[in-house]
Amino acid sequence: MSKQELVVLGQSDENGGCCPGLVTTPLDEDQAAELAKLFKALGDPVRLRLLSMIASRAGGEVCVCDLTPAFDLSQPTISHHLKLLRQAGLIDCERRGTWVYYWALPATLDRLAAFLKTSQTAETTA
Amino acid sequence: MSKQELVVLGQSDENGGCCPGLVTTPLDEDQAAELAKLFKALGDPVRLRLLSMIASRAGGEVCVCDLTPAFDLSQPTISHHLKLLRQAGLIDCERRGTWVYYWALPATLDRLAAFLKTSQTAETTA
Repeated sequence: MSKQELVVLGQSDENGGCCPGLVTTPLDEDQAAELAKLFKALGDPVRLRLLSMIASRAGGEVCVCDLTPAFDLSQPTISHHLKLLRQAGLIDCERRGTWVYYWALPATLDRLAAFLKTSQTAETTA
Repeated sequence: MSKQELVVLGQSDENGGCCPGLVTTPLDEDQAAELAKLFKALGDPVRLRLLSMIASRAGGEVCVCDLTPAFDLSQPTISHHLKLLRQAGLIDCERRGTWVYYWALPATLDRLAAFLKTSQTAETTA
């Protein structure tokens, strides 16, 4: 699968930020288009629940077989939502035998968090 | 205008967080539905540009008359996008004479940032 969309957030930014912060300067059209794709991927309750199930899992990864029973949705529908999260660079996956295993990509989540954050707090990276 | 949707983020949370953090515990259906509305509001390039123009403005507020010239869109279309941002609790506004003035609501932005952030850094609130 193409990972073209994984690079949308300006990964060369040394500060780990994506684009200028929201309170720093107005976004240009390209930056806004790229970020909007990511927020759109988050703008669905099923995808948010899937992402939180994956991101909060101790051990860091989840078998798709553990995700689908939580939803009253078909496997193809769940797979479609997972694909959109993956295309946005929010999760990644690997097939092992019968099952596909998913994990969150914290760099993307943290870049979005840094973009949204308005209060400039003193902060030390752990 | 109803501000019903402004309370979706669990403002009673003393930590200023909205719901559990994404990496903390899976969201329940209600939490996911509420957060998805907010991310959906951010999931459009025009709305993201409007929000960044408003949030980054020195002085804290922007006349709608300064927003519309930046877009090749009709005034009603801009107003519609602003309304969606307002319904999500991301901005608020006030009419003064001829014009409407907009400002960002940092509490909502910071709650979303806290929700997305995966790295638990030592942090002191300024």
